[in-house]
Amino acid sequence: MSIIMHDLAGADPDLRFSPYCWRIRFALAHKGLPVETVPWRFTDKASIAFSGQERVPVIRDGARVVSDSWAIAEYLEETCPMPALFGGTIGHAHALFINAWADSVLLGGIARFIVRDILDVIDAKDQAYFRSSREARFGMTLEQVQAGRDNRLAAFRDSLLPIRLVLRRQPWLGGPAPSYADHIVAGTLMWPRCSSRFPLLAEDDPVAEWFGRMLDQYGGLGHAAKTP
Amino acid sequence: MSIIMHDLAGADPDLRFSPYCWRIRFALAHKGLPVETVPWRFTDKASIAFSGQERVPVIRDGARVVSDSWAIAEYLEETCPMPALFGGTIGHAHALFINAWADSVLLGGIARFIVRDILDVIDAKDQAYFRSSREARFGMTLEQVQAGRDNRLAAFRDSLLPIRLVLRRQPWLGGPAPSYADHIVAGTLMWPRCSSRFPLLAEDDPVAEWFGRMLDQYGGLGHAAKTP
Repeated sequence: MSIIMHDLAGADPDLRFSPYCWRIRFALAHKGLPVETVPWRFTDKASIAFSGQERVPVIRDGARVVSDSWAIAEYLEETCPMPALFGGTIGHAHALFINAWADSVLLGGIARFIVRDILDVIDAKDQAYFRSSREARFGMTLEQVQAGRDNRLAAFRDSLLPIRLVLRRQPWLGGPAPSYADHIVAGTLMWPRCSSRFPLLAEDDPVAEWFGRMLDQYGGLGHAAKTP
Repeated sequence: MSIIMHDLAGADPDLRFSPYCWRIRFALAHKGLPVETVPWRFTDKASIAFSGQERVPVIRDGARVVSDSWAIAEYLEETCPMPALFGGTIGHAHALFINAWADSVLLGGIARFIVRDILDVIDAKDQAYFRSSREARFGMTLEQVQAGRDNRLAAFRDSLLPIRLVLRRQPWLGGPAPSYADHIVAGTLMWPRCSSRFPLLAEDDPVAEWFGRMLDQYGGLGHAAKTP
């Protein structure tokens, strides 16, 4: 029986752009585990009430329900050890740093380039909620957050330097093969790819080259994803 | 026979402040390997010419010579697998990201707070070399690099957020016990500790609490280090 995953969708139910859901889509594909996704919108709190919280991803694996991308990755590694996402205690601990970096520096950085664009792709019923919750978080309008993004692009691209330094020495963040670290970063980059047309990565950036290879993985899962 | 390590020293030969040498001091102690350090100054290029390059750390383990902190850590893990620094292929690959983050964000960030202070602790014979090489790198005087540091402190402390997020979930960057990730970050923080009196970390920062625990490890190796 397939795992069922509630997955954030846009007005177009085929548009899937959650950075946390994408981490899990990649991790499931890495494990070779089939998944059936259920499109979910920000305001569909009731439909995931069974999980005891209000955010996606949520997976249902038979009777077992797990939410939060990090906890889901741990669950997948425990129930289906190979191919490995973490490769043991230390690999798991070190991946948590990469997850923390992606959640703060990378996700926080990207938000300021696309948060107004997201409003154009989400369902009409989500728009008021999305605007008010995000404007409260940033303390300004979505338009103000995104303003002047061309001038901030070089600094954002500089913030990717740790990834670039790693790729000088190994083909994947996981070393000779992708690991959950690759899913974390590529999943995070699926967010702008699937919700905005803004060219966040320079074409000649080694990070873009690596991301292209990640889009090819797992039968081209990332490439097949709908973009705006 | 002890491993011999060339270790950057100040005018006071007991003052050891290289962030790269400290990573290896911690890693050696983690493995329980005795080390005999040889004080080395920036301009002592001739004394490490046997290593085929001009930087420390350099270790000599019997007939074997290894330079570059990352390569030395790999060598130690290969020749003395336990207790582990990396815990396998994926842990090693993920540690490279933390190493890259420390080398770029952390080290680059710290430099702007202490580079002028370092001039006051290094050997007289190193001072002209240090000033000219670092001023060429920054494109300004050491005094200009360090100017206004009080105003930049909050932004620097914010840049430690990924570490803070990790420490919310586990006691060490390596998980239940320190790994080379802890040596990388603590080694990097030994640099300002042993070359400057500037209070880079807030006392109530969980990063400072963790660093205090790292100073206690290995028989209080970090605590025993001389500070200016």
